[in-house]
Amino acid sequence: MIIDLNSDLGESFGNYSIGNDVEVMKYITSANIACGFHAGDPIVIEKTIKLALENKVAIGAHPGYPDLIGFGRRSMKIRNGELSSMILYQVSALKSMTEALGGKLAHVKPHGALYRDLAHDYKKSLIVAETIHKIDPELIFVGLANSKMLRAAREVGLKSVNEVFADRSYNDDGSLVSRLQEGAVINDEALCIDQVNQMLTEKTVQSINGNTIPIQADSICVHGDTSKVVEFVKNLSEFLTNKGIELKSMKSLNLL
Amino acid sequence: MIIDLNSDLGESFGNYSIGNDVEVMKYITSANIACGFHAGDPIVIEKTIKLALENKVAIGAHPGYPDLIGFGRRSMKIRNGELSSMILYQVSALKSMTEALGGKLAHVKPHGALYRDLAHDYKKSLIVAETIHKIDPELIFVGLANSKMLRAAREVGLKSVNEVFADRSYNDDGSLVSRLQEGAVINDEALCIDQVNQMLTEKTVQSINGNTIPIQADSICVHGDTSKVVEFVKNLSEFLTNKGIELKSMKSLNLL
Amino acid sequence: MIIDLNSDLGESFGNYSIGNDVEVMKYITSANIACGFHAGDPIVIEKTIKLALENKVAIGAHPGYPDLIGFGRRSMKIRNGELSSMILYQVSALKSMTEALGGKLAHVKPHGALYRDLAHDYKKSLIVAETIHKIDPELIFVGLANSKMLRAAREVGLKSVNEVFADRSYNDDGSLVSRLQEGAVINDEALCIDQVNQMLTEKTVQSINGNTIPIQADSICVHGDTSKVVEFVKNLSEFLTNKGIELKSMKSLNLL
Amino acid sequence: MIIDLNSDLGESFGNYSIGNDVEVMKYITSANIACGFHAGDPIVIEKTIKLALENKVAIGAHPGYPDLIGFGRRSMKIRNGELSSMILYQVSALKSMTEALGGKLAHVKPHGALYRDLAHDYKKSLIVAETIHKIDPELIFVGLANSKMLRAAREVGLKSVNEVFADRSYNDDGSLVSRLQEGAVINDEALCIDQVNQMLTEKTVQSINGNTIPIQADSICVHGDTSKVVEFVKNLSEFLTNKGIELKSMKSLNLL
Repeated sequence: MIIDLNSDLGESFGNYSIGNDVEVMKYITSANIACGFHAGDPIVIEKTIKLALENKVAIGAHPGYPDLIGFGRRSMKIRNGELSSMILYQVSALKSMTEALGGKLAHVKPHGALYRDLAHDYKKSLIVAETIHKIDPELIFVGLANSKMLRAAREVGLKSVNEVFADRSYNDDGSLVSRLQEGAVINDEALCIDQVNQMLTEKTVQSINGNTIPIQADSICVHGDTSKVVEFVKNLSEFLTNKGIELKSMKSLNLL
Repeated sequence: MIIDLNSDLGESFGNYSIGNDVEVMKYITSANIACGFHAGDPIVIEKTIKLALENKVAIGAHPGYPDLIGFGRRSMKIRNGELSSMILYQVSALKSMTEALGGKLAHVKPHGALYRDLAHDYKKSLIVAETIHKIDPELIFVGLANSKMLRAAREVGLKSVNEVFADRSYNDDGSLVSRLQEGAVINDEALCIDQVNQMLTEKTVQSINGNTIPIQADSICVHGDTSKVVEFVKNLSEFLTNKGIELKSMKSLNLL
Repeated sequence: MIIDLNSDLGESFGNYSIGNDVEVMKYITSANIACGFHAGDPIVIEKTIKLALENKVAIGAHPGYPDLIGFGRRSMKIRNGELSSMILYQVSALKSMTEALGGKLAHVKPHGALYRDLAHDYKKSLIVAETIHKIDPELIFVGLANSKMLRAAREVGLKSVNEVFADRSYNDDGSLVSRLQEGAVINDEALCIDQVNQMLTEKTVQSINGNTIPIQADSICVHGDTSKVVEFVKNLSEFLTNKGIELKSMKSLNLL
Repeated sequence: MIIDLNSDLGESFGNYSIGNDVEVMKYITSANIACGFHAGDPIVIEKTIKLALENKVAIGAHPGYPDLIGFGRRSMKIRNGELSSMILYQVSALKSMTEALGGKLAHVKPHGALYRDLAHDYKKSLIVAETIHKIDPELIFVGLANSKMLRAAREVGLKSVNEVFADRSYNDDGSLVSRLQEGAVINDEALCIDQVNQMLTEKTVQSINGNTIPIQADSICVHGDTSKVVEFVKNLSEFLTNKGIELKSMKSLNLL
């Protein structure tokens, strides 16, 4: 059994530092790097790409809404043409930067409110998938497990990865509980690892209402901006390895 | 004899429209497209790349300082690492966008205050040239004729293009007269064409002080944001063709 | 009978010019000046305040979502605390700038998507009204005629102005037809003047579905960013004056 | 003897947190609050103003260059009119926000590269001083001790405060050693307190070259973005109190 461990990195900006990219990078297999619209700046992006290359971590683009103040966490009503251009610009910047530094862009994972909006919107997901395909048909589309994002990816011929969250609660329909709601984030590390364990062994997860719902886990997201993240990523990585699960980046998975 | 005609395009932004890209594109051979830092946004950039492709105009990146309010015309004291990352990000965005849309990025021309600063600064020019080379060693570096920019380009193994201006006055040292100074911009169309003619036939130009200075012209810049530009570009194009000078994009030139 | 004529001005930005503020200012009685978040920059704002003062036009703040690329026309899901701070900052900047230049801020009119969102959302309108009241209880809240914005304004003790549009179509519920829908903007000048005439004499308007709906008109908005606006504003102003209607800024109205 | 203790606060931005404003605010007498151009956003600014009011700390505006990525630490060549409008906007926002929240803006201290540029440029300092005077002639101009900023302030009739730094090295001419140079920042706390002590008792400071130069200290700046700042501010505050020096905000000083 193989699983990918991904994290959102490169989210520092100018004089502002966030996350602990240097340490987290040691334990993950895929890095989603912010593209400068919701977070990240050219210096941070370049540094994070280099760090991923040094750690042999697969590099992905992590495009978001153009909203620095809101960190891309506020939904914006943008038209289809705007959405497509916005994805084209951000992913292109990451792709060619990665190549200039000696690597190859492997995947794309939308960020924050854009991620949430796409999970519910097949048409917009299709636009994003088509744009990614135009940039490079080999790019993998990472989206919420079982959501419309992944259906759209497959529709246009992109490989898709079902992403699950160790520390987030799920609604009965498989969507994430909103951060504005209580219980959205699971703070107890043992519970997080239990959730991952159930996802991998049972292919299910307990929803916030206590129901058992089916879920497909290709990649586990570990959040880079919480304080105890390094310890947790290390423990999760050890737990998985001890169970005989191999940690490998997405391209090693048998994807649809 | 062959000459390239270039123009700075794609400088609209959001709801703001500037220049007359559709018309200008018909008469030029190279388009320098703003990258979103001093002007341009993802929609504008995508549209301008497509327009260039339709008109078979060579596509270049036109990176600038991160200063929308100042339109990249205000010098900023940035460190070498910042400069390099800033160029890497902007040119990468344009390169991969152009490829996704079916073209190939041909050249890079710095914008505004960055262009002026580089013309005087060999070390910073070297940093920019090295960054461009890292992205793609086939990219052509367009800079102020005879300036340090071009020496730096050749130093790192990039092809370089000596750019001259039809409507700008020159100082005795070959630098452009600052826009803040009177007489910086030549408004009389006939004088502009005279200046170009002298540059091409005599390989000289009259400085603002009346001195004759040597100048090498590989490409002529026509500014896209003035009102009468379309008429002028058309007339200049006819003038050159009538003189038996072929208008072709930079890659057709015999460059060092 | 008295009516106010307002226009959204100061929406240029840096090197980008929009509208014809100098001419429009001659015919209106109230100017809503962009605050730098969706449009406008410090130089433009200062210049526009001075222009209003010279023309004895009442000055208002025109705050919007922080979205330059989208010109504040894209709805953003922002929390209540963010909304309040965002209004506080923008209106404060305009208020103290106006005072430093010798005037007094008279009113506040939300812009674009924020205006539309508030018209439907009583709770958010209340937050905006409370924030404006905190800045200066004498400020007038300009909102869509008969909408929740004005009810919220009255609730917190602010004077409120029912704004109507000469060139926009109305839905049956009194809301504006979305710009994305056909027929949203009325381009025929005669029809625009007819619509205003009916609003003032009958206190009704024909909806896009042909129904006659009641409407209260305290102030008429004339858009500053269309090409024929100057001619139209002049004609509308003459039409009103010829009917014996006095054009005066909001503070001269008998407001609730 | 009376001295003011000031700190640059409110420099967080969106999801990015910097400094320890809550703790630092307990020991200082004046807070310089970022205005949103180099740092700070509406929410952060509002929160910081409230925090200052709760701690009875005098509130000042801390305007900077419009450069979030560079944190206002990169010099920008801006024209006089741009400089004036930029100061007008930022200080106005802070002034009216402070009043809306129940306080009164007491002073203005330029930030980062703007501060450094003004210290050397009498004409630009004069423009800033005139703009501040236009906003409110009671505002105090805080600038580098003995620099051209303060001469300009006095010239236009503003009260001026000579600011000194506990943890920065001085050149022989009284300017600060550039952060790019070694030895610019004094990390040893005891040395910092020694420097302050000499400034207050001898009215001199040792330059980085070992020379004794005269200096006038009205207010001591303690930097809010270093890790050990809270401990240091507390110790400095105790040291001063133990010497019988009263800590009071600028308006209590006998200013020219």
